[in-house]
Amino acid sequence: MVEGLSINLATIREQCGFAEAVDLCLKHGITKIAPWRDQIAKAGLDEAVRIVRSNHIGLTGLCRGGFFPALEASDRSKAIDDNKRAVDEAAALGADCLVLVVGGLAGASKDIGEARKMVADGIAALLPHARASGVPLAIEPLHPMYAADRSCVNTLGQALDMCEQLGEGVGVAIDVYHVWWDPDLAREIARAGDMKRILAHHICDWLVPTKDMLTDRGMMGDGVIDLKGIRRMIEASGFHGAQEVEIFSADNWWKRPADEVIRTCVERFRSCCQP
Amino acid sequence: MVEGLSINLATIREQCGFAEAVDLCLKHGITKIAPWRDQIAKAGLDEAVRIVRSNHIGLTGLCRGGFFPALEASDRSKAIDDNKRAVDEAAALGADCLVLVVGGLAGASKDIGEARKMVADGIAALLPHARASGVPLAIEPLHPMYAADRSCVNTLGQALDMCEQLGEGVGVAIDVYHVWWDPDLAREIARAGDMKRILAHHICDWLVPTKDMLTDRGMMGDGVIDLKGIRRMIEASGFHGAQEVEIFSADNWWKRPADEVIRTCVERFRSCCQP
Repeated sequence: MVEGLSINLATIREQCGFAEAVDLCLKHGITKIAPWRDQIAKAGLDEAVRIVRSNHIGLTGLCRGGFFPALEASDRSKAIDDNKRAVDEAAALGADCLVLVVGGLAGASKDIGEARKMVADGIAALLPHARASGVPLAIEPLHPMYAADRSCVNTLGQALDMCEQLGEGVGVAIDVYHVWWDPDLAREIARAGDMKRILAHHICDWLVPTKDMLTDRGMMGDGVIDLKGIRRMIEASGFHGAQEVEIFSADNWWKRPADEVIRTCVERFRSCCQP
Repeated sequence: MVEGLSINLATIREQCGFAEAVDLCLKHGITKIAPWRDQIAKAGLDEAVRIVRSNHIGLTGLCRGGFFPALEASDRSKAIDDNKRAVDEAAALGADCLVLVVGGLAGASKDIGEARKMVADGIAALLPHARASGVPLAIEPLHPMYAADRSCVNTLGQALDMCEQLGEGVGVAIDVYHVWWDPDLAREIARAGDMKRILAHHICDWLVPTKDMLTDRGMMGDGVIDLKGIRRMIEASGFHGAQEVEIFSADNWWKRPADEVIRTCVERFRSCCQP
């Protein structure tokens, strides 16, 4: 058993389907995963639930809901409907949370303030269903380089302000890749702990140079992020859930055998991630 | 005359030397520029000063000083010496400020807090010479995607905190490319104005998608930044200096005739940048 480690299945999405990925994790002693909705859909929700239950797998999250901003009200409604289905899937799978990548600017709009309001409104509309389903919503602040097209929530502080505004049932997923640079990181992690809003802790590494803005994430230890230091802050704030490895790596890890990838995740988790 | 517009000469660095760039700006009615030190060195400092004075050119800044963090104390000293020479050049050219790109992590260090301290220490060591030379230092907060390798000062708020700590003689260069995503932007611009620390306003645009993290900046109007909105904030805070166009564009604008680039800068400045 590898205690405290979860594998986000995006890390081996090019190599494995859902069932195969679960088998591989179990082989390496890992009993926590975070799948993506397209992976679940491909396996079939019922079959995925069966696999999860029969193997006593824990889900540190389901990826992902979100993408709330849109110019037309009808499109914003459609997004909320789709997010409700994501909540239902997370509930069926017993996931610790539904991760929200909230979306960027609405269409051709340049009004990031308006996009942020649409996000808050969208989560507010989703929350009653999420609460009734027992599924916490995890706002994942994304790196500012994704502000235009993926997420207009770009700092932990901003995500926590949104949580305060929205009330119970919503928290944050802290991904080191997105927040490691933040001058307010220590303060905001402590605040997130005080608010009891930390729902997930994602890890990977920031490579220098980074060759692609989306698919050049590094394996823990290969980049510049102080992974032990950030974990120390997170544990000090009261969160002791698993560290979830999420690596998008088109030119490296997605091209290697999945077994090698998972073995390396375990090794690096042990050597680079635990304070 | 095009009032209120400055051209950062990086925008046509692939096409023009210093003298040619100045001639081209003058031809388009632009009397403000911001050159880079390598461009000045190539022209020769004395010759550059002669060109600037004889044509009554104003410099909205000299690019650039900075890059303070280093593992060895001797390397940090060398950086300060080089910055002193940059101050001397800025003074000779009568530049409004010396722009500082402060540098990222020191060597293989993962301690961004330590890098930030090295930056503050480096600027503190440079300040007496800058003050004596009458050259304001402009800390340019860079986008968080450059935190590792170019600048560990990544938000306007962080730069202003550093200014408060350092005292008189240091302010900020606000480049829309680096700060447009910041949820605290309006508040921090107002604060910068109250502190009378705004020394420069740089413009370009954020393209979607952005294909390269360094050299895929857009022409004003081609991206998603609310340029008029940000200028409105900056003017409301009391800064009415020129808007300085700084575009790094390896695959587009650096490949076009310089005359077309400058003509487009003027057109877009008129249509997209003035509130």
